[in-house]
Amino acid sequence: MNLIEMNSVKTVCSIGGGPIGAGWAAFFLAQGLSVKAYLHSEIEEEDYRSMIKTAWISLEKLNDLDSIDPNLIQISTNLENCVKDADFIQESAPEILSLKQDLYARLGNIVSSEVVICSSTSGLTMTDIQSHCGTPERTVVAHPFNPPYLLPLVEIVGGKKTNSEAVMWARNFYEYIGKVPLVMNKEIPGFVATRLQEALWREALHMVANDEATPEQIDKALMNGPGPRMAIQGQCLAFHVACGAGGMATNLDQFGPALKLPWTRLTAPELNKKLRDAMVSGCEEITAGRDFESLALERDRKIVEIIKIQKTHVS
Amino acid sequence: MNLIEMNSVKTVCSIGGGPIGAGWAAFFLAQGLSVKAYLHSEIEEEDYRSMIKTAWISLEKLNDLDSIDPNLIQISTNLENCVKDADFIQESAPEILSLKQDLYARLGNIVSSEVVICSSTSGLTMTDIQSHCGTPERTVVAHPFNPPYLLPLVEIVGGKKTNSEAVMWARNFYEYIGKVPLVMNKEIPGFVATRLQEALWREALHMVANDEATPEQIDKALMNGPGPRMAIQGQCLAFHVACGAGGMATNLDQFGPALKLPWTRLTAPELNKKLRDAMVSGCEEITAGRDFESLALERDRKIVEIIKIQKTHVS
Repeated sequence: MNLIEMNSVKTVCSIGGGPIGAGWAAFFLAQGLSVKAYLHSEIEEEDYRSMIKTAWISLEKLNDLDSIDPNLIQISTNLENCVKDADFIQESAPEILSLKQDLYARLGNIVSSEVVICSSTSGLTMTDIQSHCGTPERTVVAHPFNPPYLLPLVEIVGGKKTNSEAVMWARNFYEYIGKVPLVMNKEIPGFVATRLQEALWREALHMVANDEATPEQIDKALMNGPGPRMAIQGQCLAFHVACGAGGMATNLDQFGPALKLPWTRLTAPELNKKLRDAMVSGCEEITAGRDFESLALERDRKIVEIIKIQKTHVS
Repeated sequence: MNLIEMNSVKTVCSIGGGPIGAGWAAFFLAQGLSVKAYLHSEIEEEDYRSMIKTAWISLEKLNDLDSIDPNLIQISTNLENCVKDADFIQESAPEILSLKQDLYARLGNIVSSEVVICSSTSGLTMTDIQSHCGTPERTVVAHPFNPPYLLPLVEIVGGKKTNSEAVMWARNFYEYIGKVPLVMNKEIPGFVATRLQEALWREALHMVANDEATPEQIDKALMNGPGPRMAIQGQCLAFHVACGAGGMATNLDQFGPALKLPWTRLTAPELNKKLRDAMVSGCEEITAGRDFESLALERDRKIVEIIKIQKTHVS
């Protein structure tokens, strides 16, 4: 497969006038790239520029952006013009399958074949999106988290007709520009992060529907319970470290029976030896030989800092 | 009901030699209270003191503790001695129902009736725990999050025989000593925060069991996706703010249909008008009139700080 050299990417096209499209545009600008923005209609431009401005406030705190003028972004409602000189395309059009299918059929014809086209879709699969595209091998899902100019995660997965080289190219490109790419093994609805968040969200909706908790109580519980920890330890590592030197093995042996309890409406999988071993060895890979003491100490130091941030008054 | 004056609590008894019991003890010490610790066996003492020492490192960063010597903690394996002069009891014994039932039968006789007894249980109900207790009206669940010396949340709920005054006393006491108490409307398995976390955890286990993601990918997704946001905005407020001025109403109208999609193994409740209105008005209560702009700005400012903390190297 003949793809453009990753470090010769100079111009990026961001398609879509919503917060995701504008957020990506701001992020690319902050990486020193030229950005061409495609908006469906000129009336979106004012809001779009205002979203870039808002994102810039944060981006400036994380990067030295003195030499970059975000106003140099080129905004157009002409798709051909926008993609013509682009070395990379980030598509963040509305989440309507037929709309994306038509768009990719068109992009397939007008975007140079050595350019990778990534979709920000949060719920559709690339197999569906690329179905009417004449050059689907370079189309990839690259799903960010909101706000995309700040949160590092990009979930990456190809469709049935995607070439694995394009997936790798996307992975390397996002890493190169400072994101944290996560290449998924297969196309699953909701990808990884959204699935996890969605399970939590649906349990929250059930609780509100059953008068078990209010939205306010749910948020209070999250922000003061698992929240401050989740930025610095994922759920697997958190349970691993919470059990001391015994780690995940102790956690599963001790709390495994609780998986049968109605602690959520979601029935757990059977905790057989294969799953137990996968969790234990997975946690060992995450910790890479670091001992319990240092992991707990790092957790605590960082939680202290996050609690201080929570208490900061922002006007 | 005749309960001790909240601000005349001077001595607290922390029952249990594990990380929760020790974590509570350290927290109470840091609030200037005298602490009597009950351990099941003397061989637990060395580990216990070491856990207090570890907790103290963090507590010193959040409070001025120059005048407090954590070594003054009184450790004993004699339960009667420990509870004799205590003005408050925090019980963090192992999560075995029969063991807690026996313990509460005993505590019911030897703890002065004006003293509130709170259980750190994460999975049992107070209705079950208090069933053999002669004075159950002052027994309350007060479930912390690990590590209990740092995370502010305490989920509070009584059992069938608990007097609501004892629940309110506990709520006020935890708030008084700097925790964030959440009084639950009813006893539900897993309380609020653990239910939400458990839904996420079970979805994670399903994904590992089905080779859809590894523990490492799950943690990467959480830490770089929803994680940095969850410390500063619960899931309800996050979705409210993500949808701009339209807020939660826009979120539900736009993403409501996605509740039918297999984005998690958890089936969502029906999104009827009652649930929709409860979510929308709940978010309005959380935001208390603050506008979208300022909420998004606060989110971004704090995420920037949390991302900086994530990048800090801790040896």
